[in-house]
Amino acid sequence: MRRSEFSSESQEEYDEITNQAPDGHLGLVDDKGYPRLVPLNFVAYNGSIYVHGARHGEKYELCLEEPKATFSVSIPYSYIPSYFKSEKYACPASQFFKSLHIRGRASVVEDKDEKSKALTAMMKKYQPEGRFIGITTDNPIYKNALEEVAVIRISQEEVSMKIKFGQNMNSEERDSIRKILKARGTEIDLLTLQMMKKYNKD
Amino acid sequence: MRRSEFSSESQEEYDEITNQAPDGHLGLVDDKGYPRLVPLNFVAYNGSIYVHGARHGEKYELCLEEPKATFSVSIPYSYIPSYFKSEKYACPASQFFKSLHIRGRASVVEDKDEKSKALTAMMKKYQPEGRFIGITTDNPIYKNALEEVAVIRISQEEVSMKIKFGQNMNSEERDSIRKILKARGTEIDLLTLQMMKKYNKD
Repeated sequence: MRRSEFSSESQEEYDEITNQAPDGHLGLVDDKGYPRLVPLNFVAYNGSIYVHGARHGEKYELCLEEPKATFSVSIPYSYIPSYFKSEKYACPASQFFKSLHIRGRASVVEDKDEKSKALTAMMKKYQPEGRFIGITTDNPIYKNALEEVAVIRISQEEVSMKIKFGQNMNSEERDSIRKILKARGTEIDLLTLQMMKKYNKD
Repeated sequence: MRRSEFSSESQEEYDEITNQAPDGHLGLVDDKGYPRLVPLNFVAYNGSIYVHGARHGEKYELCLEEPKATFSVSIPYSYIPSYFKSEKYACPASQFFKSLHIRGRASVVEDKDEKSKALTAMMKKYQPEGRFIGITTDNPIYKNALEEVAVIRISQEEVSMKIKFGQNMNSEERDSIRKILKARGTEIDLLTLQMMKKYNKD
């Protein structure tokens, strides 16, 4: 991370990013030395990242070896068109975003209690309105499912976050961006305006 | 890709995914053997994926070696709550999405003409309304910028896509999902309803 004004180490940010992002990318290295990237639903629970999937296939096989792994989450906000600054020069174009980059080890969770708790946490993230019975090891309706599903834990050895909402710009430039976002007015533009307010003093 | 009903090889799909997605993840392997994942704006141009960045830093240094690389794009659509099928059992919960996975080599583009064309293509993707002067090697306003920016090309040795909008379900299940999406009615739910129509016969 070269520009320190964009970096964050706040637990609140971590919670917001992991709760809001619908998916993240698990990165592994395959047998041929290629990075293997898999977009997945996920939950941050008890100091780790958890994902789930089938008990076969490349991702599962690779994770059996407890490999070095990366988990990357990106939440793109508004694209910032170059003309907030110039009607000619394309270079001021930018992208506002939040991102999270985790390095650790991926491993297959065999403990049924840990599996059920991680899966229940995932359900709560994606389905906060409820309307499901929590996943527990003693409930017979989940017995087979808990055996069949693979739950993978990614440990967090290094965590970094980056948050970019014009903190490197001056007030005039941010004002000009706000005008464009208000005029365009999509859902994501309105969220971006909120974030600009949160991360800048003007 | 285990379930063939979700896989696609259509050029039209490729074009839609690469045009619509605001970002993708470039995957490399760092010096310590960890996957290095970087979310980036990108453009598909002339049979390759192009991204840009600074002429220093880890991503740039790694790409100088023309390493094995992966580029992964995920477009999450609606989360499908478990209660479309059951008020008890959490397992039917699902996520509709489109994704694209590319394996190839990453390399730093030194040819100014290729750099300028790739950057112009990227501007056209993100700023279709124009209001910028196309980036060309003979325009003095871009001389320094073209030298300073790093453009990275990811070649496409293998391309696979996955598209999931309930093609594995029966009509009743899809009807039940449609009701939930209509009632919720966010922007992404309305887009998901369009996609369900596109990829299913009912």
